[in-house]
Amino acid sequence: MPDEINAGKPKGPKITCIGGGTGLSTLLRGLKKVTKNITAIVAVSDDGGGSGVLRDELRMPPPGDIRNCMQALSNAEPTIEMLMSYRFDSGSLAGQSFGNLFLAAINGISESFDKAVMRMGEVLSITGRVLPVTTDDIHLRAKFEDGSSVVGESTIAEAKTANCSRIKRVEIVPSPAKALPACIEAIEEADMIILGPGSLYTSIIPNLLVDGVAQAIMNSDAVKLYICNVMTQPGETEGYSVSEHISELFKHAGGQVFDYCLINIDPASPAILERYRKLGAESVQEDMESVAKLGVQMLVAPIAAKHNKLARHDPDKLAKEVLKIFLENAPTKSYGT
Amino acid sequence: MPDEINAGKPKGPKITCIGGGTGLSTLLRGLKKVTKNITAIVAVSDDGGGSGVLRDELRMPPPGDIRNCMQALSNAEPTIEMLMSYRFDSGSLAGQSFGNLFLAAINGISESFDKAVMRMGEVLSITGRVLPVTTDDIHLRAKFEDGSSVVGESTIAEAKTANCSRIKRVEIVPSPAKALPACIEAIEEADMIILGPGSLYTSIIPNLLVDGVAQAIMNSDAVKLYICNVMTQPGETEGYSVSEHISELFKHAGGQVFDYCLINIDPASPAILERYRKLGAESVQEDMESVAKLGVQMLVAPIAAKHNKLARHDPDKLAKEVLKIFLENAPTKSYGT
Repeated sequence: MPDEINAGKPKGPKITCIGGGTGLSTLLRGLKKVTKNITAIVAVSDDGGGSGVLRDELRMPPPGDIRNCMQALSNAEPTIEMLMSYRFDSGSLAGQSFGNLFLAAINGISESFDKAVMRMGEVLSITGRVLPVTTDDIHLRAKFEDGSSVVGESTIAEAKTANCSRIKRVEIVPSPAKALPACIEAIEEADMIILGPGSLYTSIIPNLLVDGVAQAIMNSDAVKLYICNVMTQPGETEGYSVSEHISELFKHAGGQVFDYCLINIDPASPAILERYRKLGAESVQEDMESVAKLGVQMLVAPIAAKHNKLARHDPDKLAKEVLKIFLENAPTKSYGT
Repeated sequence: MPDEINAGKPKGPKITCIGGGTGLSTLLRGLKKVTKNITAIVAVSDDGGGSGVLRDELRMPPPGDIRNCMQALSNAEPTIEMLMSYRFDSGSLAGQSFGNLFLAAINGISESFDKAVMRMGEVLSITGRVLPVTTDDIHLRAKFEDGSSVVGESTIAEAKTANCSRIKRVEIVPSPAKALPACIEAIEEADMIILGPGSLYTSIIPNLLVDGVAQAIMNSDAVKLYICNVMTQPGETEGYSVSEHISELFKHAGGQVFDYCLINIDPASPAILERYRKLGAESVQEDMESVAKLGVQMLVAPIAAKHNKLARHDPDKLAKEVLKIFLENAPTKSYGT
């Protein structure tokens, strides 16, 4: 790592990333190459898929998003890394991720879920650390503009589509949920705080709804960045521009939780866009003026992956850009040599 | 390790242990302290419990006995060791061993079961190695003296008890099953070959029925020892004396597969014996004359565990005695300094 990347700190700047799902793990995969000082704060309101099964049957927080982040930060030997991605293909375990079962078993031998996550991090020799935003047993409720509402993260997209209505607000139930103290500390101590990329209502906002998280972010002097998704997400953000993503974040946080917003400038191919269009997704429209009115500086860079059929961020391009933004905007007093 | 224990070999004598179940793992737990040159050959005809479920649902060999042996030989970090013993306590996974799922997942990312077992050994940093006796999909058939028969290892004890009949013969189906070449090599290269301790018909004999195994043992010049169980086993060996255990082994192997038989001389307390008696088990009767007639030298030593409520072998006492037998009986030319 060149000295300029270290920004005067031997392990690199302290970056606290907040989100969930595949978006956050994509960021982490690149970020671990530019700093060792990473904390990933992960939402725990998921109740679908294999995570939902384990949450229900083993009375534990949903392991999937945390496991994904662990994998992204892992430095374990190849067999362990392959195992974490393995999914059983038959019987009653069909579709279940071994990595989720691994975290479930560690949870079984640990006194609390956050300690289990810490131990899993040790087993996987991860760079940095991963924290569940809370160990409270929380679910997500979505209220739609037509007045209806649903409880259960995994049911929101379907309900929204059925209602043909925008999401007015999401809430966690029961509320308030108590943030893991280490999460608040990681936000307070961060040189940079990053929200996203990831699902707006089901990965990023659930973190901001946990008691103390949004306030700690607002109180922080760190470089605060939101990485907007490349595409809108069916069942969550159809038709949302960049400023609409941001205003939803500010509304749910109760204030301005970041100063910068990073947008991809490198459009996907017409073929990929057409495929996404059929699924109800499109490129997020860049409405820079509206963004500026929200007090946010919009930054653009070519950060999309070029090597697959998906319109997603590229981990390394993203990390490089994040570091550039940090170095250009961090107060010199704290980070210079 | 003192020099005399190494018997002139830096890693200790090459000991190949053959069996299954908890008996074999008890031996291995002690043995790894006196030699690093261990091969455990494990039966794969189990079809009950969590192993049976995985065998059935994931179309894989039964993982349980192999996992037990791995644990006994493991030098992994404490978290991993604890995980291997962990059993889920609720939901559809209730009672399933995480260690079994671990082996199942490694099997899923490996090209063959024996390679999966090898990789698991690497992950657990085991002393020595564990080998499934075959990778063929085999089951056990028991024929009783009353003419009836059952297929399925887990059904034998119940059927025997219901029939009130002795087991006449066990067979593997389909037959013949092909031995893993590494098993034959491990037998050929062994300085010492140990059968048992463990269930006579369901842990030890199933190995001897796999093509080439019994013949390779008979051809070997190694010190060949059978460690007899401390107690008779309900549903298998009720009323069997030591010589009856031995003659059953020789009958199924088609010849004399060992020259020494080690017997515990240290009786369990009356209270423990009474508890076992209620379950249909008693101390195995030492009929030294009958044993001698079979061409086997009976050796006695205090090798039972004293610290629990079970009449079982003590790993360290057993290993110490095994090593003593080896050193007293191995041909000097091969093992002297």
